[in-house]
Amino acid sequence: MSSAVRLPKGFRGAGGAAGIKASGRSDLALIFGEVGLSWALASTTNTLKAPFVLRNAQRYEEGAEVRAVAVNSGNANCAAQGDVAANEAFVAAVAKQLGISSEEVLTLSTGVIGHALPVDKIEAALPNLELSKEALPIAAAILTTDLVTKISEVELEGGARVVGIAKGSGMIHPNMATMLAFVLTDADVSQDLLREMWSDIINQSFNQVSVDGDTSPNDTALVLSSQQTPADEGEVQGALLNVCQDLATQVARDGEGATKLITVQVTGAKDEAAARRAARAVVLSPLVKAAAHGNDPNWGRILSSVGATGVALDLSKLSIHLQNVEVYCGGARAFDAAEVSKQMNAPDLSIEVDLGVGTAVGTAWGCDLSADYVRINADYHT
Amino acid sequence: MSSAVRLPKGFRGAGGAAGIKASGRSDLALIFGEVGLSWALASTTNTLKAPFVLRNAQRYEEGAEVRAVAVNSGNANCAAQGDVAANEAFVAAVAKQLGISSEEVLTLSTGVIGHALPVDKIEAALPNLELSKEALPIAAAILTTDLVTKISEVELEGGARVVGIAKGSGMIHPNMATMLAFVLTDADVSQDLLREMWSDIINQSFNQVSVDGDTSPNDTALVLSSQQTPADEGEVQGALLNVCQDLATQVARDGEGATKLITVQVTGAKDEAAARRAARAVVLSPLVKAAAHGNDPNWGRILSSVGATGVALDLSKLSIHLQNVEVYCGGARAFDAAEVSKQMNAPDLSIEVDLGVGTAVGTAWGCDLSADYVRINADYHT
Repeated sequence: MSSAVRLPKGFRGAGGAAGIKASGRSDLALIFGEVGLSWALASTTNTLKAPFVLRNAQRYEEGAEVRAVAVNSGNANCAAQGDVAANEAFVAAVAKQLGISSEEVLTLSTGVIGHALPVDKIEAALPNLELSKEALPIAAAILTTDLVTKISEVELEGGARVVGIAKGSGMIHPNMATMLAFVLTDADVSQDLLREMWSDIINQSFNQVSVDGDTSPNDTALVLSSQQTPADEGEVQGALLNVCQDLATQVARDGEGATKLITVQVTGAKDEAAARRAARAVVLSPLVKAAAHGNDPNWGRILSSVGATGVALDLSKLSIHLQNVEVYCGGARAFDAAEVSKQMNAPDLSIEVDLGVGTAVGTAWGCDLSADYVRINADYHT
Repeated sequence: MSSAVRLPKGFRGAGGAAGIKASGRSDLALIFGEVGLSWALASTTNTLKAPFVLRNAQRYEEGAEVRAVAVNSGNANCAAQGDVAANEAFVAAVAKQLGISSEEVLTLSTGVIGHALPVDKIEAALPNLELSKEALPIAAAILTTDLVTKISEVELEGGARVVGIAKGSGMIHPNMATMLAFVLTDADVSQDLLREMWSDIINQSFNQVSVDGDTSPNDTALVLSSQQTPADEGEVQGALLNVCQDLATQVARDGEGATKLITVQVTGAKDEAAARRAARAVVLSPLVKAAAHGNDPNWGRILSSVGATGVALDLSKLSIHLQNVEVYCGGARAFDAAEVSKQMNAPDLSIEVDLGVGTAVGTAWGCDLSADYVRINADYHT
């Protein structure tokens, strides 16, 4: 499906190779609004922030209108000599190429940190990018060591569409996990409304993904609307959440060394924040992740990781399901461990925990921890 | 040295096999005070708490005097049918054997969770334990899958001694990381003073160790004094800290799958809490741990893990040393990566980060992440 996805009305995009990646693979992407775009932003909470993160946040504060987003992969342009000037030059080159103002351009970078961004390569490559309606060239150009492109699409009643594009955690010989996500829609949503929706949507999607618990200085999730097509507000919100959760699971499934997607649903919590925190703790636990890799129905590790968060729970009512089999309910349950282990040997692992103290629900997505994760991150050098 | 360490004045101890471990290895330990002991306690913050954790905390609240501590390894007696009653029976059996009151007994359990503790085996084994002045039988009996016993000893001016015994993270076919630590001294320290000192000491030692970021429901660190020998207050505090930090590094070095001890010292922080938090974040990062395993001088991952904590830092002044070689100082530094990598190929890895915003210092200890960690925790089943 991914290869056929077309951008929503009012958008064009492009991707190509600028030579930032030594491999020669596609590493420069453009998203272009044929009209001014309303937008909302969520970016990393890491104290260490790439210059583009700071600049984009400032544009956002100022309520700037956006016409174009440019992304390079292969170099994070972070903690490097001259990184601020390099980002400004990147912005200027994109504005010049598209014939728009610098103020209307956002940039993003992902890849190795601490090395100067070769802006000259970007300047040379920009004229060769061909804008089209295809999502795939953008999705391909933002990857680092992701194994697959990540695209998600929802069509609303009334014809408006939401198209999401993301990259997940991957080391680029040899750096940190990074996540970028772009959600484009032609649904008529004002900037104020997008802003209102966005943090809620992020909390229920990208903020609930964990590959290894590391937060990069470049993480960014951006939603852009060309406001071309009338759409119901609630429906738009649902579609955005849908697309973001789909991308989140794609990111988790493609985690480094991962062989399976782990979905943790916590129910019966006091409130949603507690439910989300507990779910996140389970997908973060290296012990749970290793057990998932080995198809070990180890409810003790799940219980312990939930307990470590300090969320309210009632042990006498708490229950745990693995692949829909109850393995704990107010105490250890007799279950066929060999059979559950067999069922765990699948590309999708479902863990459900009912805390037994309320009605709130939260979900998180992660992946198993394999010896390959260690190999990927230990054996390749700076 | 460990094998020769003798317990401080006023203490005797024992260890032996009760048959809780299927392997038949030593799994039952006693620490006995020939006199009433002053004591202080720090135990797990996990919401899930073994019954002994709750009982010991209650005794502590009540200001109870302690004469004996009994420990079984091989079974955590946590989240199991009848675990509260089993712990009470454990307490009663120890009191009966030693001819003291139940109120004077503390118990601890470590091992697999969710299985009933075979108290009958403990009752049968207790009469066979021989109390002696040796530390080693205790240290051996509390291990789960630790590879080595962990003992530390300091002698104070005036002749008082401090002896520490700990077990670290190990999976007992197949459970969670656990830590137990006992520090015994004959230095004359009142219960009030011990309590005052203990949380500070714990914060600078055991709370700064991480093997995999998982907190067990059984973690306990206990200090006991027979108050037999006069000693200077400040000297006692220094000796306790010394012993606890030594045990903490022993625990980290023996982490599952570990091939090296990582010591992270953060300097130049706003306050000590920030320094400790930043240091802990570095030893917790799977990316840093994997890089350490692969001898990769990857300062980007170190910088990013510090940034992710949100502690105050000044990027223009921040510096990073790996094995005493400056690899980052207000920006990437040219350094001989091959040479630093060679120096990292050692049983001890030193990482120093100066945040450049203050004068506070904090240290944390951890270990590298190896493919063996995954194998240990994925390949052995419940």
